[in-house]
Amino acid sequence: MKVSEVGEFGLIDILARMVEEAGIKGFDRHTGQGLLLGIGDDTSAWAAETGVQLATTDTLVQGVHFIPDVTSWQELGWKALAVNLSDIAAMGGEPWYALITLGLPSDTEVENIKELYRGMLEIARQYGVVIAGGDIVGSPVFFITLALIGGAQKGLDYPSNMLRRSAAMRGDLVAVTGYLGAAAGGLKMLQQGITFDLETTAYLKEAHLRPKPRIEAGKALLKAGISAAMDISDGLLADLSKLCQASAVAACIQADQVPVHPLLKAGFGEESLTLALSGGEDYELLFTGTEEVVERARGLIQEPVAVIGKIVEGKAGQVSVIDRSRKLIQPSKGGWDHFVA
Amino acid sequence: MKVSEVGEFGLIDILARMVEEAGIKGFDRHTGQGLLLGIGDDTSAWAAETGVQLATTDTLVQGVHFIPDVTSWQELGWKALAVNLSDIAAMGGEPWYALITLGLPSDTEVENIKELYRGMLEIARQYGVVIAGGDIVGSPVFFITLALIGGAQKGLDYPSNMLRRSAAMRGDLVAVTGYLGAAAGGLKMLQQGITFDLETTAYLKEAHLRPKPRIEAGKALLKAGISAAMDISDGLLADLSKLCQASAVAACIQADQVPVHPLLKAGFGEESLTLALSGGEDYELLFTGTEEVVERARGLIQEPVAVIGKIVEGKAGQVSVIDRSRKLIQPSKGGWDHFVA
Repeated sequence: MKVSEVGEFGLIDILARMVEEAGIKGFDRHTGQGLLLGIGDDTSAWAAETGVQLATTDTLVQGVHFIPDVTSWQELGWKALAVNLSDIAAMGGEPWYALITLGLPSDTEVENIKELYRGMLEIARQYGVVIAGGDIVGSPVFFITLALIGGAQKGLDYPSNMLRRSAAMRGDLVAVTGYLGAAAGGLKMLQQGITFDLETTAYLKEAHLRPKPRIEAGKALLKAGISAAMDISDGLLADLSKLCQASAVAACIQADQVPVHPLLKAGFGEESLTLALSGGEDYELLFTGTEEVVERARGLIQEPVAVIGKIVEGKAGQVSVIDRSRKLIQPSKGGWDHFVA
Repeated sequence: MKVSEVGEFGLIDILARMVEEAGIKGFDRHTGQGLLLGIGDDTSAWAAETGVQLATTDTLVQGVHFIPDVTSWQELGWKALAVNLSDIAAMGGEPWYALITLGLPSDTEVENIKELYRGMLEIARQYGVVIAGGDIVGSPVFFITLALIGGAQKGLDYPSNMLRRSAAMRGDLVAVTGYLGAAAGGLKMLQQGITFDLETTAYLKEAHLRPKPRIEAGKALLKAGISAAMDISDGLLADLSKLCQASAVAACIQADQVPVHPLLKAGFGEESLTLALSGGEDYELLFTGTEEVVERARGLIQEPVAVIGKIVEGKAGQVSVIDRSRKLIQPSKGGWDHFVA
C-alpha cells in the first residue's frame, strides 16, 4: 500500500498507534513529570520539573508548499517560523527557542538563504523567539524544517494551562479570531496573476505571505477560560472537523456568520465564502466555549472575534453548514448551495 | 555565490553571524535564564527555571545520507535517532523527547515507513526516549528530520554541567571511547560488496548501520571532570579540528595510538588507519583533559578509552599526525606517509 492511498492523516494514525503500542512513558502522577500530549494536537506537551513545555515542528518543501515565483525567500523565512508560532498560539503558550534545518541543493544561491534568514529573524524578533541552532544538509530539493520549543501558560495546572483540540463540549459556541479566506484569496491572486486595486492587493498578499500568529490571542483565550482551540491551517471546515473528531462531537456552522473581510468580498464576490470555509493558511484561532466564556474572551482579544456556530450532538468530526434560513448547504461548482435532490 | 562554493560550514558561519547581529537573547544573570549555547556545539543549550535543556536536530536525505540498497528502513530508523542521541551524549546530557518529520514521495510504501518506525522505536525504548510528535509532508525525495530535546546533567552549574567543544586546554591529553573506522569500513564493505568472514562482516555492518550513542559514557565524562568533548560524526581528524577551532588550540595525534579494532585491521589491513583517522559516523566520543581526569574517566566508562595525542600550541584548529618515531605523516594515495619533499 502506498502513502498516497492512506493519506497523511491515515499514516499518522498508523504511526501513532505503533508509538502507543511500543509503550510510551506517559505523565507520572508521583513525579509530576512526563508526556501530557503526544501525537494529535497542535503541539506536543510534557511536564518538566517546573512548568510544562511545548514542542512543534513544521516543514516547507519547494514545489509542494511554496513556489519561488510566488514567495520571496524573505517571505518564506517569515512563513516558516510563523506556521510553527501559530501551533504554539493554538495551545495558549509562549514560544522560546527554534532549531532550523535546511535541505539545500548545491547550486542554491547563498544570497537567497541570507534573505530567508532575514525574514525569519524579523518575525523571531517580533515574537521574542531565539534561533538556537539547527542543521544544514545537502538535498536534491530545497526544504526548511523548523522545530519550535515553548512553554505553557504558568500559574495553572494541567489541563487548564493549555488549549486542546479534545476539550470541545456539546452546547459550546464555535468562534474564530480575525477574518478567514484572505490567505487562500491571496494565493489565488498571486498564482493566477489577478489584478485588484492597490489596497486589496496589499491586503491579500500580506494575508498569504506574512501570516500573523495569534500568540497574544491564544494566551487571552486561556485567561478567559477557553479550553478547546486549534489554529486554522488547512481551512475552517477541515480543521473544525479535526477538533470535533478529537472531542467526539459534531458542529454546525452558520455560513453568513463566517467573518469575511470586505476587501476579500470585494475582490472575490460570492467565491469569498468558499475561500473562507475551505481555504487554508489563515492561521487564525478556532475555539469553542460557553457564551459567557466566549464573551469574556472577546473582551480580552485585540482581533475581532466572530461566533460562527455551535457544537452539537452527532457523528464525531461531522461539520454541517447552514444558511441564514437554517437550511443545510453544501459545496457546489458555483460556491455553496442547498442540497440538490 | 552558490552554497557549493562556500560549503556547509562556510554557510553556517554566515548564518550564525546574522543571528548574532540580530541581537539574540543570551543568558541573563539576573533571572538565571536564557541561551547558553547557540549555533556551533553538538546541541543548543538554554537555562530554564530549573535545569538546563539541550536540543539538537539531524536530517537524513535519501541518496545523500543513505541508499536504500545498503540501509534497510528499520536500520534507517535506528540511525536517524542514534545520530541525534549521539549529540546529546556529546554534551553529557540525558535524552527526553523526539519530534519526527518525514518528507515522503506519494508512492512511498506504508510498510517501509512502519519498518522505519520499528527501528526508531527499538532504539527509543533502549535509551528511554519518548516520541512526542512530528510532521509528515509531501516531498519529491524521502527525508527524515529528528529534533531531540533533553536535559543537561543536574546538580552542577553551567558550564560544569555540560561537555563543550570550546573547553580544550593546551597540555590536555586527547582521548576517544571505543574503536574508530569501523563504520566507514562497514559502509565500504556494503557499497562495494566486499566479502569477509561472518564475524568481521557482522561487526562492520553493525558499526555502520546500528551505531550505539555513548549516553552513559558522556555522563561519566562529566562526572570525572572532563569539560571538552564532541562526538565523532565526520571523522576523527575533521572533528578534532572543529574542537580545536572552538577552543583556539591545535592538536597532535599519534597514529599508532588511534584505536583500530582487530576485525577492522584484519579486513582492511593498512587502510584501516585511514578509515580510523578520516572515516565518519563512528559516533564515539572525542574528549580532552588532564592525565588525572582522563584516567578517572577511564575508570568510569564501560567502553575502552584510548589516549591518542595531546592539545598543543599552534594555529587554532590545526591537527597534525605523527608516527611512532614522532615524524609527521600525511594522507597519501596508499594511506598515511611521511611528507614527501
